[in-house]
Amino acid sequence: MAAATVDHLAHERSKTQFDVDVMKITWAGSKHALDVADRMARLVASDPIFRKDNRADLGRKELFKNTLRKAAHAWKRITELRLTEEEASMLRVFVDEPTYGDLHWGMFIPAIKGQGTDEQQKKWLSLAYKFQIIGCYAQTELGHGSNVQGLETTATFDPKTDEFVIHSPTLTSSKWWPGGLGKVSTHAVVYARLILDGKDHGVHGFIVQIRSLDDHLPLPGIVIGDIGAKFGNGAYNTMDNGVMRFDHVRIPRNQMLMRVSQVTREGKYVESDVPRQLLYGTMVYVRQAIVSDASKALSRAVCIAVRYSAVRRQFGSLDSSLETQVIDYKTQQSRLFPLLASAYAFRFVGEWLKWLYTDVTERLKANDFSTLPEAHACTAGLKSLTTSVTADGIEECRKLCGGHGYLCSSGLPELFAVYVPACTYEGDNVVLLLQVARFLMKTVSQLGSGQQPVGTVAYMGRVQHLTQSKCGVITADDWLKPSVILEAFEARAIRLAVNCAKNISQFPSQEEGFSELSADLLDAAIAHCQLIVVSKFIDKLKEDIKGHGVKEMLQILCNVYALSLVHKHLGDFISTGYITPKQGALANEKLRFLYSQVRPNAVALVDAFNHTDHYLGSILGRYDGNVYPHLYGAAWKSPLNDSDVPDGYHEYIKPLLKQKLTTSRL
Amino acid sequence: MAAATVDHLAHERSKTQFDVDVMKITWAGSKHALDVADRMARLVASDPIFRKDNRADLGRKELFKNTLRKAAHAWKRITELRLTEEEASMLRVFVDEPTYGDLHWGMFIPAIKGQGTDEQQKKWLSLAYKFQIIGCYAQTELGHGSNVQGLETTATFDPKTDEFVIHSPTLTSSKWWPGGLGKVSTHAVVYARLILDGKDHGVHGFIVQIRSLDDHLPLPGIVIGDIGAKFGNGAYNTMDNGVMRFDHVRIPRNQMLMRVSQVTREGKYVESDVPRQLLYGTMVYVRQAIVSDASKALSRAVCIAVRYSAVRRQFGSLDSSLETQVIDYKTQQSRLFPLLASAYAFRFVGEWLKWLYTDVTERLKANDFSTLPEAHACTAGLKSLTTSVTADGIEECRKLCGGHGYLCSSGLPELFAVYVPACTYEGDNVVLLLQVARFLMKTVSQLGSGQQPVGTVAYMGRVQHLTQSKCGVITADDWLKPSVILEAFEARAIRLAVNCAKNISQFPSQEEGFSELSADLLDAAIAHCQLIVVSKFIDKLKEDIKGHGVKEMLQILCNVYALSLVHKHLGDFISTGYITPKQGALANEKLRFLYSQVRPNAVALVDAFNHTDHYLGSILGRYDGNVYPHLYGAAWKSPLNDSDVPDGYHEYIKPLLKQKLTTSRL
Repeated sequence: MAAATVDHLAHERSKTQFDVDVMKITWAGSKHALDVADRMARLVASDPIFRKDNRADLGRKELFKNTLRKAAHAWKRITELRLTEEEASMLRVFVDEPTYGDLHWGMFIPAIKGQGTDEQQKKWLSLAYKFQIIGCYAQTELGHGSNVQGLETTATFDPKTDEFVIHSPTLTSSKWWPGGLGKVSTHAVVYARLILDGKDHGVHGFIVQIRSLDDHLPLPGIVIGDIGAKFGNGAYNTMDNGVMRFDHVRIPRNQMLMRVSQVTREGKYVESDVPRQLLYGTMVYVRQAIVSDASKALSRAVCIAVRYSAVRRQFGSLDSSLETQVIDYKTQQSRLFPLLASAYAFRFVGEWLKWLYTDVTERLKANDFSTLPEAHACTAGLKSLTTSVTADGIEECRKLCGGHGYLCSSGLPELFAVYVPACTYEGDNVVLLLQVARFLMKTVSQLGSGQQPVGTVAYMGRVQHLTQSKCGVITADDWLKPSVILEAFEARAIRLAVNCAKNISQFPSQEEGFSELSADLLDAAIAHCQLIVVSKFIDKLKEDIKGHGVKEMLQILCNVYALSLVHKHLGDFISTGYITPKQGALANEKLRFLYSQVRPNAVALVDAFNHTDHYLGSILGRYDGNVYPHLYGAAWKSPLNDSDVPDGYHEYIKPLLKQKLTTSRL
Repeated sequence: MAAATVDHLAHERSKTQFDVDVMKITWAGSKHALDVADRMARLVASDPIFRKDNRADLGRKELFKNTLRKAAHAWKRITELRLTEEEASMLRVFVDEPTYGDLHWGMFIPAIKGQGTDEQQKKWLSLAYKFQIIGCYAQTELGHGSNVQGLETTATFDPKTDEFVIHSPTLTSSKWWPGGLGKVSTHAVVYARLILDGKDHGVHGFIVQIRSLDDHLPLPGIVIGDIGAKFGNGAYNTMDNGVMRFDHVRIPRNQMLMRVSQVTREGKYVESDVPRQLLYGTMVYVRQAIVSDASKALSRAVCIAVRYSAVRRQFGSLDSSLETQVIDYKTQQSRLFPLLASAYAFRFVGEWLKWLYTDVTERLKANDFSTLPEAHACTAGLKSLTTSVTADGIEECRKLCGGHGYLCSSGLPELFAVYVPACTYEGDNVVLLLQVARFLMKTVSQLGSGQQPVGTVAYMGRVQHLTQSKCGVITADDWLKPSVILEAFEARAIRLAVNCAKNISQFPSQEEGFSELSADLLDAAIAHCQLIVVSKFIDKLKEDIKGHGVKEMLQILCNVYALSLVHKHLGDFISTGYITPKQGALANEKLRFLYSQVRPNAVALVDAFNHTDHYLGSILGRYDGNVYPHLYGAAWKSPLNDSDVPDGYHEYIKPLLKQKLTTSRL
């Protein structure tokens, strides 16, 4: 089969109404970012050690060993090719397999950077940067995830020896989940309750060596293991998420991370003059990265589903001998195109969050903490919104691929299973939305006080107008105006928030009201977060975007994103009195029209993500659309096809057919 | 650990306000059904060969072989114990592992029963009942799933030899997906286009032997294989979903299934006097079984999530030194309790569907086809609704279990991965909803004609009233009245349908309008299907249900089911003008109150499902709630814990730590 020479999607690509190359740059963020990503993606794709199409067939041990190999090979290539930090991190992205390196680079090192003193950083980071030690981040325990303040592991200072004694007092205090812990890491940042002279000073971080650098065995007093299989065939089963218990393990005093608070030689607790808020900066950083990852993961799923929907034909077409491409069905479009638009929307809000992080960092340096609560609520909310939509969206894309989406060779099961933890880690999505809701309630309560809300809650300053105005839409076209969309989202968000605040005030206490109405508060928080995404997409379109048809196309996607949300949450928009049922119907009518504008550009819009076939890891999503021969070919790689007659035939099938089962030993 | 003697949920169980034993019978359908299920569940649970906690750790081949073993053992036990057909089928349910037997009993045999002549049935069923042959159902192809009429495999009659020649003319005509085909089946019912003297008579079924009964090798001219790994660790990877190609394979003429149409010795096509509609009876049967399975699958997920939510504590409680049980959080309740209510709702609508199937069958025997279109639309719609909600609901339950829900030992990943195909097989859920919508549009168009709609569309006869009336709710309590709920769902359903019909009529053609508005039609179809579920739940409550508090509890669940849908689809209810925003808010207020009534009974309500720990397959869902010691204990069974130092350390970790990576061979 001349797979390399066909392009079953050429006809689709010929219909494109915008400059795909410019869109690629817009998606990547810059020409430079696109170039680096492109080079690294091809480097990985062309290296046979990084193949990943066999993951689903490997047993756990083989799978894990193979990932160790890839991780080592990646590091080898990074050093051999003297890749920059940016290149190295992109290369790891394209290797696309969870491994201890993610935690080493993404959590262990940042924890030391953020919470370690200069001296500690100097000592430990130089080891970590060269991989002379491998570190993980041991925070969550068997009994505690979301509630970090409830951790049970203790670090008791022993002034006699100038050491901390790290201990797991209960079964539920076992460290549980840290990636890289189970089999690989030599060191861990361990979070434990600091006990000084019998007094509990709350949770602090400690650098603990956990394995010998000689023979890799766990050090005395430490029990470590892998916690077992996780969701999906490959997915996080390439990672050694671990369990660890301490039996009075001693570490030197200087291994407590002491940037914000110290323990002196005498065992005294001292707060440094470094403001505690600095730690929140890290949280903003991590969460903006998660939002950026969300757009990436969603873009992969959407790319697969769009391309396959253009290849797949089913049921008759009136004007052709060929069956209809499933992408031409309105039901397919109404499920798929909002996700396509969401991928772009999340991409741009992620870009904006990166700016927000820089801004917050600058302000923190200048001891300006004024924007921190707003930035914190905003990143928490966007982390929650984008990861939830992405997880559900990947599964929706899988369903949109019909039966074949259930095959691992479609790439979608793996993408889903490896992605869903993002809804839980770094803050459970519901817990985070409640934090946003709390911030909103506080903002509402201060509205009369003269204190003007800033940043993403600035619109709340116009509470008078927004709670009284009505949507001015008369024709379906009116829904295309950014100002109309923006005000609709603002009005809905503030009205839901104000309603919650009013209803809470009717309870005996604020706390009780907040707790009783928390389901409504989630709705209010989601409305606020969706507003942020919509408004940042609209802001993006105010930029000077070059390239034939690029801005026009993004405008269409922005409208699809917004109006599909109006349709989905119509109850909110109408019941808060801002729009009428008639206006809702007009929005829906316009949405259908927008889908027809997306349709001829759909394949080009996913081409603009510039994903290699290796990175997509999907036969259904192949760039050339040559799906069927490759599905057929891949089937024969199944281990069950190693022989015509399967292992087990003689013991379990033949006796059945020969009616000799009752005499056979099973 | 004295696991057998603790009951961490005893306190929860002591709060129960209804008779759990009677609820168990109500759930099971009868005392007899409960007894059989209970005996079979325990039989399976106590047999070590049926253990399933190690599935996620096995490679594909081991996993498959182990399933062959279980299937043979199950059959051995069934014959040894002389189990009845009812008992045998329950036993297979509790073995809880997809295998060739599902297709043999569930598709191959019914196909022959439904489409074979008496003579064919006599010959083939006697072989099949004793497992002297193993059969599968080879319908779908690489290029065709939903569109059965588009299948490409051909069966060309050769009058010279009185044979059919079965052939795969294209790559996309390869049979693809049939379970049991890849490695096990000796026979298949193959669907192919019947070609007589060059003329295509459409798709028919043929019994084809595909493997030798001597050595199990594929017969000459037939290529068969497994299609490769599927979603999830275990899940359908225990099944040999297969691919098959025919190269001019000859079978005797009498192996075409000839109950409804025949081919004569001369090659003439003859329709028998058996009405074609009989075939639809089978479809109704299969789909009612799927609805029944949906309630079962959802009940398992909900059982796990409810029990674990009662065990898990997180964040402070105001009035206790213990942290709060997560089931006490309103956000948890608002996500979990509607699913609990849905499990019960689907159970009862499934029960009703069983009655409907009997009714349809009786009528068909009497040549009364009048109710068939309605029964067909109704089962199609309920199949779609219940499987979609169940698939999403299982994943929601997984998320409700936080991080630990991501572990295979939680049982939820497996439950999800093994369940989701139900959204696709036996009719893609979106395609089915469009069939419902088409039926609704037809019903609406006939409303003026004097033809009274019957069965589940009978309410449409009251179109005048339902499109003009207003909801009479004044206080939140009004929402508890069944008549109020019913009319709200009827009004919403009919208004959405009538609106669609009106909008369609504005298009140049009915077909174009239907296609353009298909996303809206899906909403209308869903509204109709939800109405059916609500109304059958309400009907159930009119029965004489004994047992302290049982009916009261079911009444609460019925209201939770209905009002949570009012909340979720508020846009529909308000925009169609039947309820006001104020009434919507009252429904929501009452819903919160209902949650507080469910709360003390939640654990007992999932106990009533009577699931054994073996069948649940979940440490989080253990009956005794003794979660943490067992999670901890299960971790050590991970294959990665076979050794302290992992396989791969010397090649891929040590050289890294020793900075000797660049000289090592990877």
